[in-house]
Amino acid sequence: MPKIALFVGGELEWFTTDFDYYVGVDRACLRLMESGLPLDLAVGDFDSVSQSELEAIQSTAKVCKIALPEKDDTDTELALKTIFQTYPEAEVTVFGAFGGRIDHMLSNVFLVSDPQLAPYMNRICLRDKQNKITYCSEGRHEFFPEPDMTYISFLQEGAGELTILGAKYELTSRNYFQKKIYSSNEFVDGPIHVTVPNGYVIIIQTKDRM
Amino acid sequence: MPKIALFVGGELEWFTTDFDYYVGVDRACLRLMESGLPLDLAVGDFDSVSQSELEAIQSTAKVCKIALPEKDDTDTELALKTIFQTYPEAEVTVFGAFGGRIDHMLSNVFLVSDPQLAPYMNRICLRDKQNKITYCSEGRHEFFPEPDMTYISFLQEGAGELTILGAKYELTSRNYFQKKIYSSNEFVDGPIHVTVPNGYVIIIQTKDRM
Repeated sequence: MPKIALFVGGELEWFTTDFDYYVGVDRACLRLMESGLPLDLAVGDFDSVSQSELEAIQSTAKVCKIALPEKDDTDTELALKTIFQTYPEAEVTVFGAFGGRIDHMLSNVFLVSDPQLAPYMNRICLRDKQNKITYCSEGRHEFFPEPDMTYISFLQEGAGELTILGAKYELTSRNYFQKKIYSSNEFVDGPIHVTVPNGYVIIIQTKDRM
Repeated sequence: MPKIALFVGGELEWFTTDFDYYVGVDRACLRLMESGLPLDLAVGDFDSVSQSELEAIQSTAKVCKIALPEKDDTDTELALKTIFQTYPEAEVTVFGAFGGRIDHMLSNVFLVSDPQLAPYMNRICLRDKQNKITYCSEGRHEFFPEPDMTYISFLQEGAGELTILGAKYELTSRNYFQKKIYSSNEFVDGPIHVTVPNGYVIIIQTKDRM
């Protein structure tokens, strides 16, 4: 189960470095190179870098996959599909998913809506210093507090009554109300149990800025 | 049809000032006061300000509505509901919807999922310097290029086949493919026509950072 870091084009001020492989998308390849980290795979249409930057990326990357600029997948989706084709058991942490253009950010947040990526949703995580996003599919799931995070929110992508048990604010058939996002919940003593009726739920663990 | 600016708790570096009324949520009230703008209405649980800051807000605001900290609505939803109760014809531009905690940002992006706010979706806009979000309900809609923006993306909240005509990348029954977000489209000559089969679509106009 290789641990893979995927660097994409948003804010890349904060990241961790305990990974087996490093993958860069487009301009984010340069960030890996500047940081002295390996560039095991470079993916993208590279419309955000100059010719000389692209040459530097190509000579550094162990593998470089250049995509057509006009395609149905975003560069990030393409990178994730390439990763899971090579390592179906990979655990992927995406850095640089937030910040910058809101359309890019929303494409990142909802990337497991892609049927080819949905099977891997339990092993994809989006991170920056203040936020951690994970995904859970239909069924019952257990969550433990993330060190250093304060709040846990649930964005439901699908229909039916979500259940949240063990949290500061429980959501059950007795007090059910419909929301797209059940936000700013908190752990109390022990884990939170969530039951997803269908589709999937985006789990957002956050803290206030220091 | 009064034009109303609503300041909320994300990044507030950029905003415009051609409005009839100014409304602040929680700590964002202080940003209006610092900028020498009116504070026609202050809304929130004010858990993000000190006691002396709250006193300053209360003595400045023409109307101050203090909410319970534990409630089903976010402060932003509560502010919008208050605005539309008072001015059902209002056009509201939200500043500070992006940046900071991702759960707050996503709650802002999907705020018209709230059945009480859905009827007003055609008159709500979220803005910063680089991004503009608007909403369109079921039916056919026409869009013109936003001055100074480069891309237009479509996030579909609902089922069925979305149609995009007149854009650089058209989406029709002939080339239809399913995506949560159809991103990085562009205007060519003239308007774009979008047909929403059901639910609603989030329109995201953006530009790359300078």
